[in-house]
Amino acid sequence: MPDHHDRLDPAQGETAADLSSGDGKTSANGKAQPAPSVPHPRHDGSAPGPLVLIGGATDPQGDALGCFLHLAGARQGGKIVGITTASANPLHSAQEWTEVFAQAGADNVEIPVIDRRDRAQDRAIAALLRSADGILLGGGDQVQLVSTLGGSRVGRALREAHAAGVVVCGTSAGAAALTETILAGGEPDEYGQMHEMYIGPGFGMLGFRAVIDTHFAQRRRLQRLFMVVAQNPELMGLGIDEDTALVVQGHLGKVVGRGSVTFVDGRGVRFDNAEECMRGEAPLTLSYLRVGIIGARYSFNLQERELENLVRARAHEEETPVVRGERAEEFAARSVAGG
Amino acid sequence: MPDHHDRLDPAQGETAADLSSGDGKTSANGKAQPAPSVPHPRHDGSAPGPLVLIGGATDPQGDALGCFLHLAGARQGGKIVGITTASANPLHSAQEWTEVFAQAGADNVEIPVIDRRDRAQDRAIAALLRSADGILLGGGDQVQLVSTLGGSRVGRALREAHAAGVVVCGTSAGAAALTETILAGGEPDEYGQMHEMYIGPGFGMLGFRAVIDTHFAQRRRLQRLFMVVAQNPELMGLGIDEDTALVVQGHLGKVVGRGSVTFVDGRGVRFDNAEECMRGEAPLTLSYLRVGIIGARYSFNLQERELENLVRARAHEEETPVVRGERAEEFAARSVAGG
Repeated sequence: MPDHHDRLDPAQGETAADLSSGDGKTSANGKAQPAPSVPHPRHDGSAPGPLVLIGGATDPQGDALGCFLHLAGARQGGKIVGITTASANPLHSAQEWTEVFAQAGADNVEIPVIDRRDRAQDRAIAALLRSADGILLGGGDQVQLVSTLGGSRVGRALREAHAAGVVVCGTSAGAAALTETILAGGEPDEYGQMHEMYIGPGFGMLGFRAVIDTHFAQRRRLQRLFMVVAQNPELMGLGIDEDTALVVQGHLGKVVGRGSVTFVDGRGVRFDNAEECMRGEAPLTLSYLRVGIIGARYSFNLQERELENLVRARAHEEETPVVRGERAEEFAARSVAGG
Repeated sequence: MPDHHDRLDPAQGETAADLSSGDGKTSANGKAQPAPSVPHPRHDGSAPGPLVLIGGATDPQGDALGCFLHLAGARQGGKIVGITTASANPLHSAQEWTEVFAQAGADNVEIPVIDRRDRAQDRAIAALLRSADGILLGGGDQVQLVSTLGGSRVGRALREAHAAGVVVCGTSAGAAALTETILAGGEPDEYGQMHEMYIGPGFGMLGFRAVIDTHFAQRRRLQRLFMVVAQNPELMGLGIDEDTALVVQGHLGKVVGRGSVTFVDGRGVRFDNAEECMRGEAPLTLSYLRVGIIGARYSFNLQERELENLVRARAHEEETPVVRGERAEEFAARSVAGG
């Protein structure tokens, strides 16, 4: 089999979200200490908190949710605040999430039921978010989530908490809502014809011109992501599989969990008929999108839109050593002069 | 919306398979003539026949099958010979195809039931194939098809008929069997883990290092095609949707029918762990594959692995005209001398 490419050690990816480290609440002898009633926040406010972007269908015992709980210190009493505003039934979802967290070993959980705009103005809920060690945004409809919270006191508190270093986890619609530009609706039928794609503003806590799609392998959504990137070639599509997290810290995103994250980069697109296609006049035609797949344990450089392995390898590329004969330089000089 | 790419007229694609032209059996006044009992072959033997590669689930009234019938002159009495060897029940499939052809208006159909190797040595069947105006390879198991016919009299007759100009249509397994390298089994589970991928030799009537996957959008097979191309970066993956044909003549393939054809080019792949992945040790990770989508009416240049629009546009690229001041050349010359 040909080997046109280097195979590098993925271990460097650990920097993105070091899941093996302690969380500051484990004593030197390795035993967990009793959960404090008011845990110390793990963040020091010097940088935005990590984003744990999950593709939906979260397993309470899985690595994806586990990563969020770890970063929030939730199993050691860290306070989780949940927002189920994306759900068609925020109260019911709040009850379900409380159960999921209990199964996962996290008990210090509060989920205010923010089911309409006036509740998003509640000062007490805004204060609750600012006191959280981790914030969860549940699934449902990302447009409903953004339109209910956007510009409200709770919406501002969410952004401020994240900016101050609190880890924010979004799953399904909760992940899709976190980018500057969000995508909704517009699922293609099985022949790639689109129906009413929605592209609008999101919370903007994940930059890099990213747009997130979730339930990715499971709902066969590559065509939808192709469409939005073909139509907006500056965007970077991120398709996250179910029960899988892209854990973003700074410009690095590490994949954790059962599936993969697919990235779609349209900057090299050379031809497409996306506009014609959006009008339903023709099936999508394009050449070409760069598509890569990031499996668990690997890290993705969101700035460079490239596997971090490759970015690092390039940064350390050395000139290939060449053994030369005695008069090689002399001949080389002549060749330059003559040419 | 940004417009980083040219939008070109797809009409040039007509050259790949001109479906609007008559087939030589229509008189000058436009009326169809009576079907001759022994139709004249439409091919002159100077070039291989077209290949009509269909992604399965063929609609008897659809454009994909219609294109094959047109090229074979089947509605004007052209003789269709079918091969249902890929099927788990070749006799039953032969009866079904006879019905499909009857619905589509093609009556001069013969489908010998080649259900085992000794029947593939039948001289009469080999002669029948050589007398055909069009040959259909039905669906089922491409490995069974190739292993039953490969190197047999019928297998050789199939290749010879195609080489002499007879149109060959393969659908599903019948299409997948036509490349030099074929792909079977090895469907990934929903998290991208592969199971027993088979890669082996095919009939080789379609070159260009292509490998074909069918039922493409419908069976969510992009991940499987990614895997085989990541593992064999010199191959070009072609994923054909159901009831959709890639009609290949020479180095051009035109898309006809309900869906699209997706191409995957691995020559630029920069990192992958396909080997580790095939051993089940890790989920697939790679950067990057070039992926393009070819909608109906567009043509793909198999040689260049690029939309024919773009290949033509490049071939006719003109230098951008520049209006220069009187002494610009003088300054330019000085600049070269000085630098």
